[in-house]
Amino acid sequence: MEPDHGPGRFAAASAVTPTGDGTFAGTVQPGWDIGGHANGGYLLTIATRALLAATGRPDPVSVSGYFLSPGQAGPVTVATRVVKQGRRFTTASALLEAEGRPVLSVLGTFGDLGATAAGDSLLVDGGPPDLPPPDECVLIHATDTFPPPFMGQVELRIHPDDLGFATGPRRGPARIRGWFQLRDGEPTDTVALLCALDAFPPAVFNADVPTGWVPTVELTAHVRARPAPGPVRCVFTTRYVTAGFLEEDAEIWDGEGTLVAQSRQLALVPRA
Amino acid sequence: MEPDHGPGRFAAASAVTPTGDGTFAGTVQPGWDIGGHANGGYLLTIATRALLAATGRPDPVSVSGYFLSPGQAGPVTVATRVVKQGRRFTTASALLEAEGRPVLSVLGTFGDLGATAAGDSLLVDGGPPDLPPPDECVLIHATDTFPPPFMGQVELRIHPDDLGFATGPRRGPARIRGWFQLRDGEPTDTVALLCALDAFPPAVFNADVPTGWVPTVELTAHVRARPAPGPVRCVFTTRYVTAGFLEEDAEIWDGEGTLVAQSRQLALVPRA
Repeated sequence: MEPDHGPGRFAAASAVTPTGDGTFAGTVQPGWDIGGHANGGYLLTIATRALLAATGRPDPVSVSGYFLSPGQAGPVTVATRVVKQGRRFTTASALLEAEGRPVLSVLGTFGDLGATAAGDSLLVDGGPPDLPPPDECVLIHATDTFPPPFMGQVELRIHPDDLGFATGPRRGPARIRGWFQLRDGEPTDTVALLCALDAFPPAVFNADVPTGWVPTVELTAHVRARPAPGPVRCVFTTRYVTAGFLEEDAEIWDGEGTLVAQSRQLALVPRA
Repeated sequence: MEPDHGPGRFAAASAVTPTGDGTFAGTVQPGWDIGGHANGGYLLTIATRALLAATGRPDPVSVSGYFLSPGQAGPVTVATRVVKQGRRFTTASALLEAEGRPVLSVLGTFGDLGATAAGDSLLVDGGPPDLPPPDECVLIHATDTFPPPFMGQVELRIHPDDLGFATGPRRGPARIRGWFQLRDGEPTDTVALLCALDAFPPAVFNADVPTGWVPTVELTAHVRARPAPGPVRCVFTTRYVTAGFLEEDAEIWDGEGTLVAQSRQLALVPRA
């Protein structure tokens, strides 16, 4: 029998407690921030834990988060509402608030991805990103300054060719490839995938594009399958920085070569 | 002075009337369907008209629609709720119902894309789809059977190389390229772009993939800019049909070569 270590760091940081009437209490943990603002993907996982509890479904299938104001460490409430309960999926909305201030509005569909038959891949026009093994990639060590504290809460190992954002020059494609896993061997569940989809530095930081911080307007994640144990391969790409906006597309593949999640986010590009 | 022809066909079909308390009445017009089910993008435009009225903003910036049940011709109500009114954007939700049955749940952010400075393209890693001029593409004439009635409500002109879905063989890439415009010279506004993003046959129909109809679970549209007058160029691509799901990505470019909208949708692939 394995000793009970209690919930992992991520499970604890994203946990919620029901407080009645579809409302849940959670805590934005200190240290899960980028320059004082809680990481968006992390906020999305708190809301998603509440939505899974409210719908009684084990997995997020599609989750759309609209970011309304920065999240800071401290208590939050998540008010959920079931929009439609179907046979296979339940659709529900959530509003995450801090001290009465709306932080994140979410709409999503939830189901059971364990019920999916494995192996029925009818079209796979792509593949996992080309990545050296984890120990040949560069583990991001968080400091109080750069990279941000959030990146120390999870294990990000970045392709040595994709470090222009940190070491310069920023003249590559707007792409970041890397391995994601939770710390201390905590398994990556489908909620943790939502965290992974927003965990890396913005891909645009590797390109010769004059941007400062790029606040997310909206992020939609699609989860295709539960990942096999072990680190997952992630790739983030930005193709268009136009009219004050950029999109960032992400794909996550598990160690068995299965596409487990995709996302696209729309972010603002403040005028330089 | 130009004579007043009244609203165009699309504006009329997507129109809503306020009925108080943030609720609107609209009508799913007959003929805007695919095999008896109203086109999803068209339903999204009805909800979006209500959300623009509720927020007082002229343009959708990001709109996420979750499709709950098929829409049929007839009256619908759209109940809107403003989630957060900001300086630049307003975020709001909507529930479109028919006879008390939830059809479409929407969350979106709305703003003024006319206030965007033109020309500030910092990164454009792509371009408009390669398309012959409209009169060298194939105009889809709707019939009562195939293609579906919806496709006669708008003008779709498809690349001659991308007609495998109709003429066979279905052995090409899962891609469809074509021109979109509204009928009778009605201008394509940013709401019409949402219609265009779901107006073409599914891209997967051009590939050697055994699929029947592919109901949309979720579609998120990002509008970057108001299109210049004239038809817009559209491209739809599916890369992954796995685990019972597929994604379809779309891009729309206007006649001046500006990226005006992107979308991704998640759809179900019923077991063959």
